Amino acid sequence: MKGSMEEILRFVERNDAFSIISHVAPDGDTIGSGTALSRILRRLGKRTENVCCDQVPDAYKFIPGAEEILLPEDARGFDAVIAVDCADKGRLGSAEGIFDRAGVTANIDHHGTNATYADNNMIEETAACAELIYRLGRALGAEIDAETANCLFAAIVTDTGSFAYSNVTKDTMTIAGELIASGADNSLINRLVYHNEPAGKVKMHAYALERLHLYSEGRIAIAMLTESEMETFGPEAYTEGIVEKLRDIDTVEIAAFLRQKGRDVKVSLRAKKYADVARVAAS
Amino acid sequence: MKGSMEEILRFVERNDAFSIISHVAPDGDTIGSGTALSRILRRLGKRTENVCCDQVPDAYKFIPGAEEILLPEDARGFDAVIAVDCADKGRLGSAEGIFDRAGVTANIDHHGTNATYADNNMIEETAACAELIYRLGRALGAEIDAETANCLFAAIVTDTGSFAYSNVTKDTMTIAGELIASGADNSLINRLVYHNEPAGKVKMHAYALERLHLYSEGRIAIAMLTESEMETFGPEAYTEGIVEKLRDIDTVEIAAFLRQKGRDVKVSLRAKKYADVARVAAS
Ligand SMILES: [Mn+2]
Ligand SMILES: [Mn+2]
Repeated sequence: MKGSMEEILRFVERNDAFSIISHVAPDGDTIGSGTALSRILRRLGKRTENVCCDQVPDAYKFIPGAEEILLPEDARGFDAVIAVDCADKGRLGSAEGIFDRAGVTANIDHHGTNATYADNNMIEETAACAELIYRLGRALGAEIDAETANCLFAAIVTDTGSFAYSNVTKDTMTIAGELIASGADNSLINRLVYHNEPAGKVKMHAYALERLHLYSEGRIAIAMLTESEMETFGPEAYTEGIVEKLRDIDTVEIAAFLRQKGRDVKVSLRAKKYADVARVAAS
Repeated sequence: MKGSMEEILRFVERNDAFSIISHVAPDGDTIGSGTALSRILRRLGKRTENVCCDQVPDAYKFIPGAEEILLPEDARGFDAVIAVDCADKGRLGSAEGIFDRAGVTANIDHHGTNATYADNNMIEETAACAELIYRLGRALGAEIDAETANCLFAAIVTDTGSFAYSNVTKDTMTIAGELIASGADNSLINRLVYHNEPAGKVKMHAYALERLHLYSEGRIAIAMLTESEMETFGPEAYTEGIVEKLRDIDTVEIAAFLRQKGRDVKVSLRAKKYADVARVAAS
């Protein structure tokens, strides 16, 4: 670990009001870690606010407390500030001013590249930042209630692809199990995160996948959408996930999804282990 | 628990050769539990064979030891016989004769309805039968090597939808974590089970979903395929999963997938919590 849990424990003890900052383009881990930390600190009688420079995406609005997250211009900016799941200061986005004006700062994160940019740091390479928040909550003696458990479970599920990524460890699973015992609804969270899509997105994916082309005995899969085809179904963001579905075809080693953007064509590439997509993309 | 782990421990100790039977229409849990139990018993110096009355589906052929599973007519039929993941004797299918001719029988299962039909039983309502096999392996003092861990992890992943079903407990997660520590490749197993489909199936789903119809402000989704449409893409079995994808649309409460079968129409129905599909299906 870079830094230590002890310095975070002392930092919490010595302060009364905390601004907790989640990163730009927030994902489930930074939202769930931030809201859970807020609930833990409030249990200890502290005041908190959650801040993020971007709106919470619809997909993560179900996380308890997500509705209370403030834009930097609406935040009070307490004297003690904590960045969660932020590998470097740039990840704070326009909330960086709140961090810079703080009397004292903390940095809780699970990215190995984190350069411990705060006064107090707790950095360990876990599958999700939420694992560190859970361990901190236990060390602080705060009860992990069902809503806090849901925040943390949602964070872990989103950062691990529902325990499918190779970053998952025995500790990840053990903590997730303890969260279920504390009342986390693993079934509902999985449905909300992975089985809850707009009809337009389902149809856009179907339209693209029905027209997929296979080359080299099925080892290469290509699908494409023109701008006008996309507009029939919904926003460009709905294309998220198409290239992964191409890669998931049993024979496929390299998948490419092409979409028109004005006079340009954007290309998304994915590979199974045998192919080196970085080299293909560079050529 | 119905029965006890102790009677299975004594049964293992008193016998030298075991036929382990997986259930008809085998799933990942019965295959992974059976192959893991075989590896555990061999570690203890016992002889074993694995038996199933149906061929292992392609999707589960990656499970270590799946290639050694015998049809009942090819099995030796040892004196000691163990049924795994079989809620009742009928689940043995045409392997029931091996069970009936045994000198002594055991029944390891996680279905609450199990009527303890063997001489020795270990029945507890866990998420997967593999949890019981793991606990038994530990109690027997057998090393859980990486391949055994992969068998058991595959079994748990398939019976829990990758830890997404409401049957998952703290124990399920803890055991899965211990399996990862023992070398189970959670990432590869997830890819093989959930991200590995024939192109024809992907195209069949896309064809059906692109043509889905929504009714009642998006609360009802319907898709359909004629026999000739299905034949364009692949076998009828490829329709598996279409109705769940309809249900996963955010606005949908009831999903129906209709497919032509000669002069009949087969209907698959799914609902989110608000709707009572059983009543709809009966009317
Ligand atoms: Mn993260
Ligand atoms: Mn089972």
